[in-house]
Amino acid sequence: MTIERVAIIGLGLLGGSLGLALRDCLPEVVTTGYDADPAVRLRAQERQLVGTVCGSATEAVAAADLVVLCVPVGAMAQAARDIAADLPAHAIISDVGSSKLSVARVLAEALPDHIVIPAHPVAGTEQSGPEAGFATLFRHRWCILTPAPNAPEAAVAALTTLWEALGAKVERMDAAHHDLVLAVTSHIPHLIAYTIVGTASDLEDVTQSEVIKYSAGGFRDFTRIAASDPTMWRDVFLSNREAVLEVLGRFSEDLTALQRAIRNGDGEQLFDLFTRTREIRRSIIEQGQDDARPDFGRGSVAD
Amino acid sequence: MTIERVAIIGLGLLGGSLGLALRDCLPEVVTTGYDADPAVRLRAQERQLVGTVCGSATEAVAAADLVVLCVPVGAMAQAARDIAADLPAHAIISDVGSSKLSVARVLAEALPDHIVIPAHPVAGTEQSGPEAGFATLFRHRWCILTPAPNAPEAAVAALTTLWEALGAKVERMDAAHHDLVLAVTSHIPHLIAYTIVGTASDLEDVTQSEVIKYSAGGFRDFTRIAASDPTMWRDVFLSNREAVLEVLGRFSEDLTALQRAIRNGDGEQLFDLFTRTREIRRSIIEQGQDDARPDFGRGSVAD
Repeated sequence: MTIERVAIIGLGLLGGSLGLALRDCLPEVVTTGYDADPAVRLRAQERQLVGTVCGSATEAVAAADLVVLCVPVGAMAQAARDIAADLPAHAIISDVGSSKLSVARVLAEALPDHIVIPAHPVAGTEQSGPEAGFATLFRHRWCILTPAPNAPEAAVAALTTLWEALGAKVERMDAAHHDLVLAVTSHIPHLIAYTIVGTASDLEDVTQSEVIKYSAGGFRDFTRIAASDPTMWRDVFLSNREAVLEVLGRFSEDLTALQRAIRNGDGEQLFDLFTRTREIRRSIIEQGQDDARPDFGRGSVAD
Repeated sequence: MTIERVAIIGLGLLGGSLGLALRDCLPEVVTTGYDADPAVRLRAQERQLVGTVCGSATEAVAAADLVVLCVPVGAMAQAARDIAADLPAHAIISDVGSSKLSVARVLAEALPDHIVIPAHPVAGTEQSGPEAGFATLFRHRWCILTPAPNAPEAAVAALTTLWEALGAKVERMDAAHHDLVLAVTSHIPHLIAYTIVGTASDLEDVTQSEVIKYSAGGFRDFTRIAASDPTMWRDVFLSNREAVLEVLGRFSEDLTALQRAIRNGDGEQLFDLFTRTREIRRSIIEQGQDDARPDFGRGSVAD
């Protein structure tokens, strides 16, 4: 089973990067694409994010071996229904959504006779839209596949080969476990970042101008994450509600314990935690999951 | 009033950077330094962080026009007492601590007859120790002075001129207001980062290895901040307790509201917040307080 024609539905950061990565890494693969927004289609054409930008989703998928839905998680069901009638019988349907249980369910419902292999490349930036994509987005990043137990092995292998060709490292996981792991490593960090940026901008005694001026003390890092696409993230939290609420509960308990330690002047508890967390950073650097340079090697910035 | 001799007590990231910045930007200024740790003194000598590394704090300050205490906030009182008997009468005493009310109090107590001008350069990285310093750390960063109302204007002006010569932008602020502003822009972001990294490593159903592997989804950013110096940060939270607990209370309320929105499936509330937070990021970029490139311009990382 080889994948020779890939259709990409949704040409934002992820879809655009997928198209560009395919062109660079697998130039023999024919790519088509579609986006519901005419302005995005136009820009995708100009940037040549895919070989052919089509005027409809059905046209884009008509000859595809693999269709990758790169739309917000909340738009997956409709995107799948839109192509159901025209999707070739042998085509694999996949996606790049950040939560997997709900996506697996809606895709299986909309396309009951097709091979569905949900996927999540753990890669991105805070930018979005057809300008944001770049060919190396997936290099050295993990891509998690969450096939159902009855998914054909040959199809899973073909999708694995394709992602590996784009530079990704592929892992297979149960969808429910994926949703819990990513709630920890991605969803809750985003929720917390959005919250503190909101809190800071709502204070009466500290002006927004002060928050911005003195953001280099740590806050500015949170604003990067909190600049991520609002539609995408709304859908993530709504679709991965159970796991997000579970991890959030744990986080709140831990925060309350630290709050109590500060109130009681318990320096030892603070010191112990702050020492432990350093180790995690060290492992992330060792495993090549972040830039080792201080401050991410961030450039000096102008006045 | 000119500052011709500067003594730096504590030769870690901040003290070392101050020494290197003085050498680069004000080469005519004579610098001496001391660190309580003999190994740090040795390394400081090798890296030439200051002109002369002295064997005692009293020796370092003996001829100083300005003494800058670059030790953790909790060690300020002892550092000030250690030099009290040998400090020239005209010398200005300053510091680089992240909380200012408590530092102002302990310095005034230990050195009642000296000019005390507390200062906080809002700059740093997650690294610490005598290896971590570099001469450009303060460039384009704010340095906040919190002089008491009766501080001599000439001394405040001299300290302002010195920090500006190192590339910093200087602002004057009331100490209590400083502590509230920095609780928002620095202390609470650090506390939250430490907490979520701790929460993630304590979960039973997600392994530490998974947390590390999939950290590119957002978590890794928090681990950078949570790799900061444990002693320094313990002292910040203990010394700025009031403001930290106040802002933490607001954050917790806001987080609870978002938790409820997720539970109730209220996508509109999430979307509204996520849209609002984008604006703050834009302002930070516009004002040159962060790297504008996506993902901080972070380099691709190896396997």
